[in-house]
Amino acid sequence: MAMVERLPEKPLRAEEHSPSATALLDAAAAILSRRNVIDISLSDVAKESGLNSALVKYYFGGKEGMLLALHSRDAYRAVEQMEHLVRMNISPVAKMRVHISGMINTYYRSPYLNRLMHYLIGDGETEAGGKIAQFFVEPILNAQRAILEQGVASGDFRPIDPELFYFSLTGACDHIFYARHTLLHLRGEGHVTDELRQRYIKHVTEIYMTTLLTPPPPEASA
Amino acid sequence: MAMVERLPEKPLRAEEHSPSATALLDAAAAILSRRNVIDISLSDVAKESGLNSALVKYYFGGKEGMLLALHSRDAYRAVEQMEHLVRMNISPVAKMRVHISGMINTYYRSPYLNRLMHYLIGDGETEAGGKIAQFFVEPILNAQRAILEQGVASGDFRPIDPELFYFSLTGACDHIFYARHTLLHLRGEGHVTDELRQRYIKHVTEIYMTTLLTPPPPEASA
Repeated sequence: MAMVERLPEKPLRAEEHSPSATALLDAAAAILSRRNVIDISLSDVAKESGLNSALVKYYFGGKEGMLLALHSRDAYRAVEQMEHLVRMNISPVAKMRVHISGMINTYYRSPYLNRLMHYLIGDGETEAGGKIAQFFVEPILNAQRAILEQGVASGDFRPIDPELFYFSLTGACDHIFYARHTLLHLRGEGHVTDELRQRYIKHVTEIYMTTLLTPPPPEASA
Repeated sequence: MAMVERLPEKPLRAEEHSPSATALLDAAAAILSRRNVIDISLSDVAKESGLNSALVKYYFGGKEGMLLALHSRDAYRAVEQMEHLVRMNISPVAKMRVHISGMINTYYRSPYLNRLMHYLIGDGETEAGGKIAQFFVEPILNAQRAILEQGVASGDFRPIDPELFYFSLTGACDHIFYARHTLLHLRGEGHVTDELRQRYIKHVTEIYMTTLLTPPPPEASA
């Protein structure tokens, strides 16, 4: 099983990488965007980037380190945006709409991101996997919980379990990107177009916001 | 990239397999249920089943054939149940509730099933991948479309795009099983317990059914 054995104390941000390191990460992102599984070799990356594969070892210590750096680059931005969103002076309703669009847009840019995270978390048995959950899952879950609580406090949202909400919303936002090769067979087009991205944002927003904004039935549900 | 090169004309049902073939599939299912990626070797299967790995070649032609048979065994049942559900003499509201529970229960039994299907569909370029989409995605999508149309016709459901509905609902139902190793870090328990399965069914049903059952706003949404 692929496992990450180490996690840098503080993952690098995009702008802290050298141009060659950035080119290697861009190449890995391009390859993974075309594939349905996290399956990539150093020679794939060398071919895509035009750089020597030894640079992967030099900059990232190897393939796993490169995948970790790629995940951090995409996911840190998402976490920072989410923590900023929670503190913004807009309504909880507006925050949740922005969050749902933001998640789908993140997966639109990096359709491999959710699978890459679960590949790095692995079977949950390594310390590094735990740190990834701690760095990238907990902040998103906490921010969602805060927005849900703000919405209940303002009288806009029905109460919803934040942990179950995290799992179902992530799955709903991600799945069209995971299943994009199925689209090829259904629609003759194997990627999510910009028009489809917009319709999907509208769809997932409608599903989640309608329920959040509908008061729960007065009697305890059976 | 892993690719399936062939697909049997008519995949075998569970009861058509010999006891040894069934034991091999059960072993593969047990291994994949513990793992987060579709990563399995013939020696894993031999060790888990206590059978000689040469039997995988004998019964299934190899590893890919075994994975295809495992997917067919689980997925055929889901498709048959779904096609039966559409024709049942119960309300569209009841059908959709049964369907959502059924999807989550399928992933509870076979938490690898959605990933296995996408592994077999691959990057969408093989004929076999297309056949899997045709055998297992289209019937589910068509059945969902039929139930959604029945619900709109009966005045119970708001109109929802069935294709987008297929993608978001599948993701929502599956994701807690995909992310189950994250649960280990969040809750100290790395699998979906029966209690959590029940709460998740209730959660996803609440999210989707509330929206379906709420009339759309009278004005065209902006």
